[in-house]
Amino acid sequence: MSMPKTLLLSLAFFVLGSAAVSADTTDPLPSWNDTQSKQSIMAFVERVTRKGSSDFVPVSERIATFDNDGTLWAEQPMYFQLFFAVDRVKALAKEHPEWKTEEPFASLLAGDVQSVLAGGLESAVKIVMASHAGMTTEEFEEIVNEWLETARHPVTGRPYTEMVYQPMLELLSYLRANEFKTFIVSGGGIEFMRPWTERVYGIPPEQVVGSSIKTEFAMEDGKPVLRRLPEIDFIDDKEGKPVGINSHIGRRPVFAAGNSDGDLQMLQYTAAGEGPRLMLYLHHTDGEREWAYDRESSIGKLDKGLDIAKEQGWTVIDMARDWRRVFPAGS
Amino acid sequence: MSMPKTLLLSLAFFVLGSAAVSADTTDPLPSWNDTQSKQSIMAFVERVTRKGSSDFVPVSERIATFDNDGTLWAEQPMYFQLFFAVDRVKALAKEHPEWKTEEPFASLLAGDVQSVLAGGLESAVKIVMASHAGMTTEEFEEIVNEWLETARHPVTGRPYTEMVYQPMLELLSYLRANEFKTFIVSGGGIEFMRPWTERVYGIPPEQVVGSSIKTEFAMEDGKPVLRRLPEIDFIDDKEGKPVGINSHIGRRPVFAAGNSDGDLQMLQYTAAGEGPRLMLYLHHTDGEREWAYDRESSIGKLDKGLDIAKEQGWTVIDMARDWRRVFPAGS
Repeated sequence: MSMPKTLLLSLAFFVLGSAAVSADTTDPLPSWNDTQSKQSIMAFVERVTRKGSSDFVPVSERIATFDNDGTLWAEQPMYFQLFFAVDRVKALAKEHPEWKTEEPFASLLAGDVQSVLAGGLESAVKIVMASHAGMTTEEFEEIVNEWLETARHPVTGRPYTEMVYQPMLELLSYLRANEFKTFIVSGGGIEFMRPWTERVYGIPPEQVVGSSIKTEFAMEDGKPVLRRLPEIDFIDDKEGKPVGINSHIGRRPVFAAGNSDGDLQMLQYTAAGEGPRLMLYLHHTDGEREWAYDRESSIGKLDKGLDIAKEQGWTVIDMARDWRRVFPAGS
Repeated sequence: MSMPKTLLLSLAFFVLGSAAVSADTTDPLPSWNDTQSKQSIMAFVERVTRKGSSDFVPVSERIATFDNDGTLWAEQPMYFQLFFAVDRVKALAKEHPEWKTEEPFASLLAGDVQSVLAGGLESAVKIVMASHAGMTTEEFEEIVNEWLETARHPVTGRPYTEMVYQPMLELLSYLRANEFKTFIVSGGGIEFMRPWTERVYGIPPEQVVGSSIKTEFAMEDGKPVLRRLPEIDFIDDKEGKPVGINSHIGRRPVFAAGNSDGDLQMLQYTAAGEGPRLMLYLHHTDGEREWAYDRESSIGKLDKGLDIAKEQGWTVIDMARDWRRVFPAGS
């Protein structure tokens, strides 16, 4: 019995060699320039995944958490979920004639978003409740999906799900290829993100942590539903992020990435664990390809966090310097 | 170039045959008798995992949720977490001289657990807060682990983590081998379960949903901690179970298992999804090898659920009939 040489070789290659060869020759982060930031990330991942390394981290402990707004997708000129809320209020306005004279709806319907933002948390909560509550969880998922299909970013004209950062998509894949479990830990609404995070980021709903409103179980026409109530359940921002991580994940991350002071406590909580850790801040320095903002910005303010990152030696990504490309090629 | 025949054959076997052969020849549920219950479970799993089947469920949707008390481990003569609370109150009593005259602590310290139970929810909450709050999340994890090492079940004398059901361990493994993601959805405390569920059930902390008290992020001596507050956050029971599933998992299960009326809403929520579903009730019918209880029991009451299960054709496991063995071989 004999086999042709090429078949034998390809069989041997299949059994013995394919995984090792592809891992050695392909750059897992092609949209990153070959700077210190990329080297730090790759050195960390190699260190914690190499068997026998004193810094080896078992697979079950490889928890990586990512902020969303400004870290995985853009957040300018305004959080994308606010554009969704505005569009929802407009769509619902004909059922609510009282909004014509009631703030913050009157300003919003008149297109005066700045007045709405000036109304602070109280205005924001009113808009979120009006636009995000009342329906069932399944109806809300459908509303989000329909919005994403037609809504376009006001500056670039692209779908919001294409306003994601190509280098971060590669980083997520690279971590997962090294058996990290990737989570989102965002101040954004958990049910606003879940309908699309698996498709866009490869992150399933059960690995999404976010802010939430309360839901209530009810039997309606003999069918069990979860109805969304106009009541805040949890704010997953600042001190809330470690609380959300503990509630949903139940372990301390070994890798955490954010871009604003709202992520500081998550990074501090990550840093305080024993053994090797990587804390990453994305610094928006690229006014040409994206937006440049930090200490003075009303959205994604990065001030105290930037000082602490430098003090503690965390990895600070300089978008203009470290990224070869910002957004994915258009669809 | 030629290869010895045996080497070629074993190579071909390795490449082509090993997975299929082992799946065909090994019984994945050896502790289950070959009754209708076992057949229903296996038929369901084969149906939803067979490519091309009209009932095929994609891997990402293969969510299976399990109650814990009375479903994965025993719950008699009292929920095991209550034994933990009692032991904690005793251990803390010397720091709390006032408990000698303050109820429910006085009764509890006098060994009169029945009076404590008669005090209902208010007594239970007081004991949980006294025994479960005040410390950091890391300290609490250590307390649970230490307790599990030394505590023994009052009837069997076995460690509590050996009071788990061998057939359910096999069912969890069988589902995971078929690319289901297995979750616990329990009325028990989420942080009471997480320290040991991965070791005992193969279920990692991030796949455990349970009742919780609030935690607060604080910097203490320059170190970030999460401190457990004496305040209920969420009760993951009855109507709370679908709410907890939605909050933590964000998808409707296709497989759910419970043993009491406290699991009814989880099973109804699971049943109401489109496509194939399996709803499983474990009926405690085995007074010889375990405990026999259902409609009249104060712990793990199964009354309304049993009627609905029969009405809806859900799978009802009769422990005495369906299980070859109940607990694992002793350590």
